[in-house]
Amino acid sequence: MRDKSQLLSQIHPARDILSISSHVVHGKVGNDAIQFPLNTRHWNVDCIHTTNLSNHPGYKQFKGSKSSPALIESLFEGVRDIKLQYDAAIVGYVASKDILETIYQKILLQLAEDTIVVVDPIMGDNGRLYVEEALVVLYKEIFSDERCENLIDLVTPNQFEMEMLTDIKISDLDTLKDAIRLFFKLYKVKHVVVTSVNFEDSDGMLCIGAKSDGEMYTVSVPKIDAVFSGSGDLFLGILTDRFVKSNGDLAGSLKHTVSVVHKVLEITYELGIDQPPKRYVDGKPYVPALRLVESRRFLQEDYIVKCGVTTDTTFL
Amino acid sequence: MRDKSQLLSQIHPARDILSISSHVVHGKVGNDAIQFPLNTRHWNVDCIHTTNLSNHPGYKQFKGSKSSPALIESLFEGVRDIKLQYDAAIVGYVASKDILETIYQKILLQLAEDTIVVVDPIMGDNGRLYVEEALVVLYKEIFSDERCENLIDLVTPNQFEMEMLTDIKISDLDTLKDAIRLFFKLYKVKHVVVTSVNFEDSDGMLCIGAKSDGEMYTVSVPKIDAVFSGSGDLFLGILTDRFVKSNGDLAGSLKHTVSVVHKVLEITYELGIDQPPKRYVDGKPYVPALRLVESRRFLQEDYIVKCGVTTDTTFL
Repeated sequence: MRDKSQLLSQIHPARDILSISSHVVHGKVGNDAIQFPLNTRHWNVDCIHTTNLSNHPGYKQFKGSKSSPALIESLFEGVRDIKLQYDAAIVGYVASKDILETIYQKILLQLAEDTIVVVDPIMGDNGRLYVEEALVVLYKEIFSDERCENLIDLVTPNQFEMEMLTDIKISDLDTLKDAIRLFFKLYKVKHVVVTSVNFEDSDGMLCIGAKSDGEMYTVSVPKIDAVFSGSGDLFLGILTDRFVKSNGDLAGSLKHTVSVVHKVLEITYELGIDQPPKRYVDGKPYVPALRLVESRRFLQEDYIVKCGVTTDTTFL
Repeated sequence: MRDKSQLLSQIHPARDILSISSHVVHGKVGNDAIQFPLNTRHWNVDCIHTTNLSNHPGYKQFKGSKSSPALIESLFEGVRDIKLQYDAAIVGYVASKDILETIYQKILLQLAEDTIVVVDPIMGDNGRLYVEEALVVLYKEIFSDERCENLIDLVTPNQFEMEMLTDIKISDLDTLKDAIRLFFKLYKVKHVVVTSVNFEDSDGMLCIGAKSDGEMYTVSVPKIDAVFSGSGDLFLGILTDRFVKSNGDLAGSLKHTVSVVHKVLEITYELGIDQPPKRYVDGKPYVPALRLVESRRFLQEDYIVKCGVTTDTTFL
């Protein structure tokens, strides 16, 4: 108090983000994979939870329930009544068509125009759909809605979700480019990032960033021979942070995000691989909880991650 | 992966805590004031939310609802089914007698014996009760229950709550000591911390730590001329961290906690006092949201806080 200017000079300003995703008591998925990393990167994270579960289904059993669309709508109304503006908003795991409908109509369309909106259309992975079919149809409707053009800045499907959105089977770089071209033809979204792309003949995993004007960035990262839950949610949070703070530098944001997530997965693998319960998914060891707290110093925005990431810029 | 031992040498091990308190979308109270500071201090924080509100009532309006006792019970059952042991558990804001009954019977009594349990009996402040009267009765019943003796390690009432628990009006050091003596006579709890003690004739605010064997520590901290929401929750989180990690060094834990909370309140005051909506409570400016993200470096356990804290050790 005595020396206000000295005190304030030590303070890093915070931004405000609304994150709409799942909540689990135990484990690191959904908002529980997004909030701490973004807090560490100077974001106040306002969480609306689409679920209230004991843990994620990767543990094979769980209790709790989805949030009702009425509760979700009402929570946002309450927040809007006292605080009008967010720098960014994230939409992650959405349990049903009804909830997504509410989020789009009652929340996203009510946000201020300069709020950066990033949507992860979480539908499935590795060839398996794990949401209701109607949700896929609704994502397509929303992304092709004219009001979406100045609303949703970035969409982050994984390979399987990109296939669902475009009805194109992605098996190599050519079919991936076909899918991205069709994506921009069908949908009124300016940027897309396709995560976790695996081609049969490649050692590494690819993440692709593309803009509607035809620029495309390829980031390659070594595969870790295990299955994790929550890595997509962590990816979403870190990418949103970089994308907003860099004013839309998609290539730089993507490279940084892939590096950070890879580092966290490495730490999670090393700390978690020997621990029970041992389980295998698709022949690979399954590690149910990301080690975010243990990875804290690598999550900070000023940490320079060095891992085997290579990037490439091409055009569609 | 190539150099596992080097990677692991950079990792600080995490502990596991169950935190049962309120959730608000916007603002920093309850679990939203506990989770980030404890994450920063290397705790995995499993949150069971007793409310799901848009914001705390200090904003004068809010939406959302309390969690049902059935949901709270079911969430813990789900967690217990996959993960048996916590290093510590916190009970913070509990909205009703039914919920507290469930937390005690279905959660606390089911925890492993060596889990450190800290309960903040949140009932009111500044002479005002803001929960149902039946909750006060239930706290008294729980703290005097014989099973409590090896269960609840520390209870953290504020001055008003200590008055409610002991039916003694605390107006000076003598009546405070009377209340603490009676507390240990009535209740089967080994440690108590009385927070935010204001005597009419004193400049500073006192926090008192006392053990059932008669030791008592007084920590004095300068008053900040404003009213905050969430400071008690932050206090609870930091105190639990220190109390567990120091193996029950109450005096050291109390001094550290008071210092950290004071620093955060200073930062919150300086950043928040000029911002709308301007409102006064009991003639003092009201600052609704703690600046936890902005205070990040001061929340880390290795940060040495220097503020005007004095301590004194006496006996009851």
